[in-house]
Amino acid sequence: MTTILHINSSARISDRSHTRKLGKTFLKQWKIHEPAVKVIDRDVGKNPISPVDQDWIIAAFTDPEQRTHAMVDHLKTSDELIDEIVAADIILMGAPMYNYGVPAALKGWIDKVARIGRTFSFDLARGDIPIEATLKDKVLVVLSSRGEFGFEPGGLRAHMNAFDIGISACAHYMGVAQEDIHSAVIEYQEFKDERHERSVVEAHAKTRSIADTLAPLYQ
Amino acid sequence: MTTILHINSSARISDRSHTRKLGKTFLKQWKIHEPAVKVIDRDVGKNPISPVDQDWIIAAFTDPEQRTHAMVDHLKTSDELIDEIVAADIILMGAPMYNYGVPAALKGWIDKVARIGRTFSFDLARGDIPIEATLKDKVLVVLSSRGEFGFEPGGLRAHMNAFDIGISACAHYMGVAQEDIHSAVIEYQEFKDERHERSVVEAHAKTRSIADTLAPLYQ
Repeated sequence: MTTILHINSSARISDRSHTRKLGKTFLKQWKIHEPAVKVIDRDVGKNPISPVDQDWIIAAFTDPEQRTHAMVDHLKTSDELIDEIVAADIILMGAPMYNYGVPAALKGWIDKVARIGRTFSFDLARGDIPIEATLKDKVLVVLSSRGEFGFEPGGLRAHMNAFDIGISACAHYMGVAQEDIHSAVIEYQEFKDERHERSVVEAHAKTRSIADTLAPLYQ
Repeated sequence: MTTILHINSSARISDRSHTRKLGKTFLKQWKIHEPAVKVIDRDVGKNPISPVDQDWIIAAFTDPEQRTHAMVDHLKTSDELIDEIVAADIILMGAPMYNYGVPAALKGWIDKVARIGRTFSFDLARGDIPIEATLKDKVLVVLSSRGEFGFEPGGLRAHMNAFDIGISACAHYMGVAQEDIHSAVIEYQEFKDERHERSVVEAHAKTRSIADTLAPLYQ
């Protein structure tokens, strides 16, 4: 049985959220292949993950055997979030672009799943690339929406795209190799024109197609 | 009299924070030129800005004259943060790189200062670039620290740098033109080697030099 970790990060909790709708499209399509797929819901849009604080950093960098009860407690949310990634085969990430990057709530999630001893190891004996991912063989599906357009390489706003680079730079923490990132993107949301309508239709088609491609690999 | 908005976003609230130390270096150097400079402190490391939620989005996109008391209340923090930018000549931003991007707490700040009717206007009559910044003529000084290195263009990790692009893409909300972004960067923090020590020395020198260059322009 496949396990999909479904992360939603849109602040819009109503049906007006494009990324929530794309997520539903993906899961519906997947269930045609595998009705019993297990889905873990993690909604950081509804329940934002608070930023790391000094106590969190100190706890994370303390040897697990030396941690006080307070430290263990401070890492509880981080442990839960990481346990969800560990349990998942697919990470389905619904993420609107907010001000050219990921929503603050999703960055809160990223900052709590990037954790030494759990999602990466650090060893200066490795030289100038001392970080090594702990998890592997997971697939990331990013479903995003953007008010504007042209964020693809060579596009009008490629130089402003902190969103895709921000997620791909952290994919290794989720056990995802660069070639295992798939994405569907809705653009032109603020323009409310026929380019936007076409983009919505195409992104849902792409989302179904990603599900159709991946699901058979997990049977 | 010059007004500097000093934003700190390091989760490390002790003296171990490199970006806090860089901020102090900048202000000390500025005061040699202008002892009476006014400094507004905004510490999102100590007091993180919560992510925008659905009520916030609805309030922000409601015509100011139509807003209910609850909506006005929901935008209160955003208004305060924007008022601080409006009052400032210089935005001094202390920001460690966390997981290749800005800290979640700082993204929370960005998402609350990007506001229609206050920091930008939106008009489809402008065509494919409908957003126009409201504020102007401000200068941004970014003081950052990084565990690794090689995030400059052409560097080993340039493709992972969601930090600089994330800030430069949003500079217009702060009334800052691209050519008015100055930065000093500490690298190699995790390596704790002599490259790191050199980087610390150089970043403090660069920070003083930025202050020396800018301060006379405001006399």
